[in-house]
Amino acid sequence: MATYKAPLDSTLFLLNEVLGYPRLLNLPGFAEAGPDMAAAILDEGARLAEEVLAPLNRVGDIEGCTRGADGSVTTPAGFRAAYDQFAAGGWIGLSGDPAYGGQGLPYVLSAAMNEYVTSANMAFGMYPGLTQGAIAALTLHGSEEQKRLYLPKLMSGEWAGTMNLTEPQAGTDVGLIRTRATPHDDGSFAISGSKIFISSGEHDLTPNIVHLVLARIDGAPEGTKGISLFVVPKFVPASDGSPGARNAVACGALETKMGIHGNATCVMNYDGAMGWLVGERDKGLRAMFTMMNEARLGVGIQGLALSEVAYQNAAIYARERRQGRALTGAKDAAAAADPILVHPDIRRTLLTIRGFNIAARALILDTALAADIAHRSPDAAARQAADDRLGLLTPVVKGVLTDRGFDNTVAAQQVWGGHGYIAENGMEQFVRDARIAQIYEGANGIQALDLVGRKLPKDGGRAVTAFFKEVGTFIAENGSGDMAPFVKPLKTGLDHLQQATMWFMANALAKPDNAGAGATDYMHLFGLVALGHLWARIALASAGKPERAADLIAGRAFMERAMPETALRLARVTTGADTVMAMPAEAF
Amino acid sequence: MATYKAPLDSTLFLLNEVLGYPRLLNLPGFAEAGPDMAAAILDEGARLAEEVLAPLNRVGDIEGCTRGADGSVTTPAGFRAAYDQFAAGGWIGLSGDPAYGGQGLPYVLSAAMNEYVTSANMAFGMYPGLTQGAIAALTLHGSEEQKRLYLPKLMSGEWAGTMNLTEPQAGTDVGLIRTRATPHDDGSFAISGSKIFISSGEHDLTPNIVHLVLARIDGAPEGTKGISLFVVPKFVPASDGSPGARNAVACGALETKMGIHGNATCVMNYDGAMGWLVGERDKGLRAMFTMMNEARLGVGIQGLALSEVAYQNAAIYARERRQGRALTGAKDAAAAADPILVHPDIRRTLLTIRGFNIAARALILDTALAADIAHRSPDAAARQAADDRLGLLTPVVKGVLTDRGFDNTVAAQQVWGGHGYIAENGMEQFVRDARIAQIYEGANGIQALDLVGRKLPKDGGRAVTAFFKEVGTFIAENGSGDMAPFVKPLKTGLDHLQQATMWFMANALAKPDNAGAGATDYMHLFGLVALGHLWARIALASAGKPERAADLIAGRAFMERAMPETALRLARVTTGADTVMAMPAEAF
Repeated sequence: MATYKAPLDSTLFLLNEVLGYPRLLNLPGFAEAGPDMAAAILDEGARLAEEVLAPLNRVGDIEGCTRGADGSVTTPAGFRAAYDQFAAGGWIGLSGDPAYGGQGLPYVLSAAMNEYVTSANMAFGMYPGLTQGAIAALTLHGSEEQKRLYLPKLMSGEWAGTMNLTEPQAGTDVGLIRTRATPHDDGSFAISGSKIFISSGEHDLTPNIVHLVLARIDGAPEGTKGISLFVVPKFVPASDGSPGARNAVACGALETKMGIHGNATCVMNYDGAMGWLVGERDKGLRAMFTMMNEARLGVGIQGLALSEVAYQNAAIYARERRQGRALTGAKDAAAAADPILVHPDIRRTLLTIRGFNIAARALILDTALAADIAHRSPDAAARQAADDRLGLLTPVVKGVLTDRGFDNTVAAQQVWGGHGYIAENGMEQFVRDARIAQIYEGANGIQALDLVGRKLPKDGGRAVTAFFKEVGTFIAENGSGDMAPFVKPLKTGLDHLQQATMWFMANALAKPDNAGAGATDYMHLFGLVALGHLWARIALASAGKPERAADLIAGRAFMERAMPETALRLARVTTGADTVMAMPAEAF
Repeated sequence: MATYKAPLDSTLFLLNEVLGYPRLLNLPGFAEAGPDMAAAILDEGARLAEEVLAPLNRVGDIEGCTRGADGSVTTPAGFRAAYDQFAAGGWIGLSGDPAYGGQGLPYVLSAAMNEYVTSANMAFGMYPGLTQGAIAALTLHGSEEQKRLYLPKLMSGEWAGTMNLTEPQAGTDVGLIRTRATPHDDGSFAISGSKIFISSGEHDLTPNIVHLVLARIDGAPEGTKGISLFVVPKFVPASDGSPGARNAVACGALETKMGIHGNATCVMNYDGAMGWLVGERDKGLRAMFTMMNEARLGVGIQGLALSEVAYQNAAIYARERRQGRALTGAKDAAAAADPILVHPDIRRTLLTIRGFNIAARALILDTALAADIAHRSPDAAARQAADDRLGLLTPVVKGVLTDRGFDNTVAAQQVWGGHGYIAENGMEQFVRDARIAQIYEGANGIQALDLVGRKLPKDGGRAVTAFFKEVGTFIAENGSGDMAPFVKPLKTGLDHLQQATMWFMANALAKPDNAGAGATDYMHLFGLVALGHLWARIALASAGKPERAADLIAGRAFMERAMPETALRLARVTTGADTVMAMPAEAF
C-alpha cells in the first residue's frame, strides 16, 4: 500500500528562500499570508492530503464511479466525506475573489496545496480542481449577476463546477463543435448536444453542478469564430440562490479508462438545457483561452505530483527491499542480502527523479507567482512582465512536467521490480493516473505548437527575449566556484536553446513544417533550461545550509544526467521536416 | 477496437535479403524450410495471429483469468479453442528436436512467429511461450527418460509448461530461494515451498502442466551454489505417458496486475509435491542460465511486438481522424478538417516508431539466427562466433527493445489523444501489457549489468571485439553516396560506444560503482549502435528496390532522430558514480 508525505519543507524553502515570496507581501492578499501564515496553511493542507485523501487513493482506483439507471453517479466510498472536509477547510476558494466569498490569498498557495492533493489522490483532486476552473471562467467573464449567483456557492464547495469542451468530432479542433444554443425570449438559451470526456461531469459530492459549456448560437459563423460560452446549472437556481428545477442535462455514460478511476469521466447530454451566455457572444473560445493558463498549470502540477509520490514510495522500497550485494562487497553482511539502495543503478534512478521533482516544484511555484503578480501587482510593467512569463512558461510546465512526470512514475515502478506490476502495491496506479496529464487540456504536441507557434513570436518575441536575458544574466553573475556544476550545464543548455530558436527563425517562417517537426523537442529543450536555471537558483540559495545538502546531491545528479539531453533535443530540432514529410500518407 | 496485420513482407525481406537466410540452408532443418517454405509457414502463422488470436486480445484483458475455490483457473472465453488450434498447427514444437516430436525447423521461424502471436495477443502467447521455455530446459538438461516422457507432450501442446523461480524474498537474487527438496528413497524428491509471479502457472488449456522448479535440496549449500532444478508435473505421468495421480502442487492465488490479464499469474504452492531432479544436483542455476538467452530473446520480441501493433493502430487512426488543418494550409479543403497525419509532429512520432520496429525486427531475427548457428552449425568456429554474438546481444535485445517498445506504445497511444485513454479503443492495453516486459526475466537494470559486468569482459572481450570489428568494417566499406545518411550517424554512434567501453575499462575496474551507474545508459548506447548497424545493412539491401522506399524513409527518420541519443548516453556513462553514491541512504 502506497504512502505519502507532503514535501512541506521543500515548498517553504523554495517559496521563501529561492523565489522571494517574502518580498511580495505588498501584493493584495499576500500580507494576510506572510511566511508564517503560509507555513501554517500548507501544514494544515499537508495533513489533510496525507491523512484524509491518500488513504482513499487505492479504493478510488478499485471501486471507480458507478452510474445509476437514472443517470446519477456515485463516487467511491469515502470520497463524499472527504470532500465535505475539503470544502469545509476553505481550500476551494482559497485564492478566490473576496468579493464573492473567496479568501483572496495568494494563488501560489493554492498551487502548492494542489500538488499535495494530487499526490495523495489525483482522481479526487479533480473534483475541486474543475470547480476552480469554473470559478476562474466566471470570475474573468461572468456578469455581475452570474458572479453573485454562482461564485460563493462554488468557492465554498457547496456546488461543484465542470468544463465542457470536447465532442466526439471536436477535440483539439474546437472549431468543429456542434452543440447548439437556441435563444429564448428571456435572454437565456436552449443548449442541445453531446459532450464527451467531461471530468467530474456528474457525481454525488454536491447537490448542484455548474457546467460551463462551449456551444454555437444558431446562425453563428462556422469554426472557432462562432463559439460561445454558457453556464448551464444542473439545477437552475432562483435569484436568491436556492436550488430550483432540474435542468435538461444528464450523464449519458461513464467512460471506462486507463486510470483516474475515482473521477467520473462523463458523456454529458444536453437536451434543450437552460443556459446563459458567459461573456460575449461568439467569443467563447477567447474566454476559454484566458483561463487555460491556470488549467494547464494545474495539469503540469499533476505531472510533478505523481512523480513525487512515486519517488517517495520507490525510495521507501529501495531502503527496505533486500536483494543481492553491493558491487563493492556486502554492506550488511549479517543479513542475507543488502538493501537494493546500495546499487548505483537504483540510486541513479531515484536521484534523477528527485532532482526533477525539486526543480519542477520550483518551476510550478515560480509560474504561479507570475500569475499572482500578473493579476495583482499595482505596477503595470511588473504585471506585463509576469504575464509574459506566465504565457511563455505555461506550455512548458504543462508539456514537460507531464511527460517527465509520467516517465518518472514508470522509473519508480521499475524500482519495485515485479512487485511494481501488482495492483495492490499502488505503483502501477501512479503510472496509469499520470498518463492522462500528457493528453488532456491540450495534448502535449499541442503545447509544443503553442510554445513555438504562438508564445515565441508573440509581441515580437518579448517574453522569450526576457527569459533568455534573465538566464544569461544569472549565468554571467554566478558562474564560478561551487556554482560551476550547476551553471556550466545551464550555460550549454541556454546556448542550445538559443541556437534552436535561431534555427526556427531561419527555417520555419518559410517552411512551417520545420517548426511542427521540431516543436516537441524544442519544448523539452526549453523545459530543461528552465529546470536547470531553477536548480542553479536553488543551489545559490542553498549555499552554507547543511540541511539542504541532500537535495543538492539530487540537483547535481539532475545537472549531470538530465541536462546533457539539451544537445540531443537541438540535434533533433535542426533535423527539420523533410524526411517526415516525404512519406506518402498511404504508406504509413 | 484495435486491429493487427502481421508484417510478413518485412520479415521475409529482412530474412532473405538482409540477413542471408538463403545462405544457411546447409544447417540442419534449414533445407526443409527454404525461402518459399518459410514464407508459406509464416503466412499461415500470420493468418492464425490475425484471425484467431487478435480478436481475443481485448476480451482477455476485460475478463482476465478466474480462480475457483478448488484452485482451478479458467482462462478468458475463447482462449481454449484458440489454444487447441494453435497447438494443432504444430507451432509449439516448430523448432524442437525431431527426436522428441519437434519439427526441427529453424528457431528463427519460431522467433518470427512469436512476434506475430505477441502483437496479436501477448497474454495468450505466454501460454505456449512458457511451454517453449520448459521444452528448452528439458532438452538441454533433462535425462533421456525425462525427455521421452515430457517433450513429445509439450511439443504437441497436449501438455503445457511453466518456469518457477521467484519467491517473495527471492526475485533478482535467486540465491535467496527457500523452496526445499527432500529426497525420497526412489530418487524422487518432495518439493515444498511457495513461488510467486508464475506466468501460466495454472489454467484450463491442457489436462496437464509440467512445472520446472528451482529448489534447495536438504543440506545443500546456501546461496546460488545450492540450488537445483526439478520437474514437477501437475499430474504425475506413468512411464507410458498416461496421466496419473494429482501432485501436491496448486495455484494459491491469482495476482491482480497492471496488464496481461489474460495470462494467469499465479502464486504456486508446493506441499511435498513429487519432483525429479533435472540436470546436476546444486547446478540448477546454471541450467536456468543456459536457457535464459532464449527466454530473454522472447521478452525482447514482446517489446517489438507491442510497438508494432501500437504503430499500426496509431497510423490507422492518424489517417482517419480529422482535426485542424495542415500548417501549410488545408490539404482537404472540401472536408471540415484534415487528417491529423498532415501534422509533422504526428508523422515524427509514427516514423520514429516504425524506424525502430524494422531495425528491432532485424535485430531479433539476426540474434535468432545466431542461436540457430550456435546450436546447429557443423563448423566449430562459426558456432563459437554465433554463441558469442548471441550472448552479447541477448541483454541488449531484452533491455533495449522492451524499454523502447514500451515508450513506443505510449507514443502511439498519444496519437489517439483522449480516445487513447479509453479502454475500448485498445491503445492503453498495449501500454499496460508492454510494461511487464521491462520487468520480468531479469529487470532491465539487471540486463544492463549482465552486459557490462559479464558479457563485455567474457573471454577477454572476444564477443564485443568481434562486434566492433563487424560494424567498423561495414562502415569502412559502405560509407559513401546514398549510404551516407545511414553510415555517418552509425560511425558517430560506434565512436561513442567505443569511448564508453574504454571509459569503463579505465574507470570501472577499480571502482565497480562506475559500471553500475553507467550500465543502463551503456546498454542503450549499445542498442542504438546495433539498431543503427542493422538499418545501414537494410539500406544497402534496399538499394534500387522501390517497394522498400517507404521503409527507408522510416529508417532515415530513425537515423536522424534516434541515433543522436548516442552522445547523450556517452555523456551519462562518463558522469560516473560519485554523485549518486554520495547520498546517505537515510536521506533518500
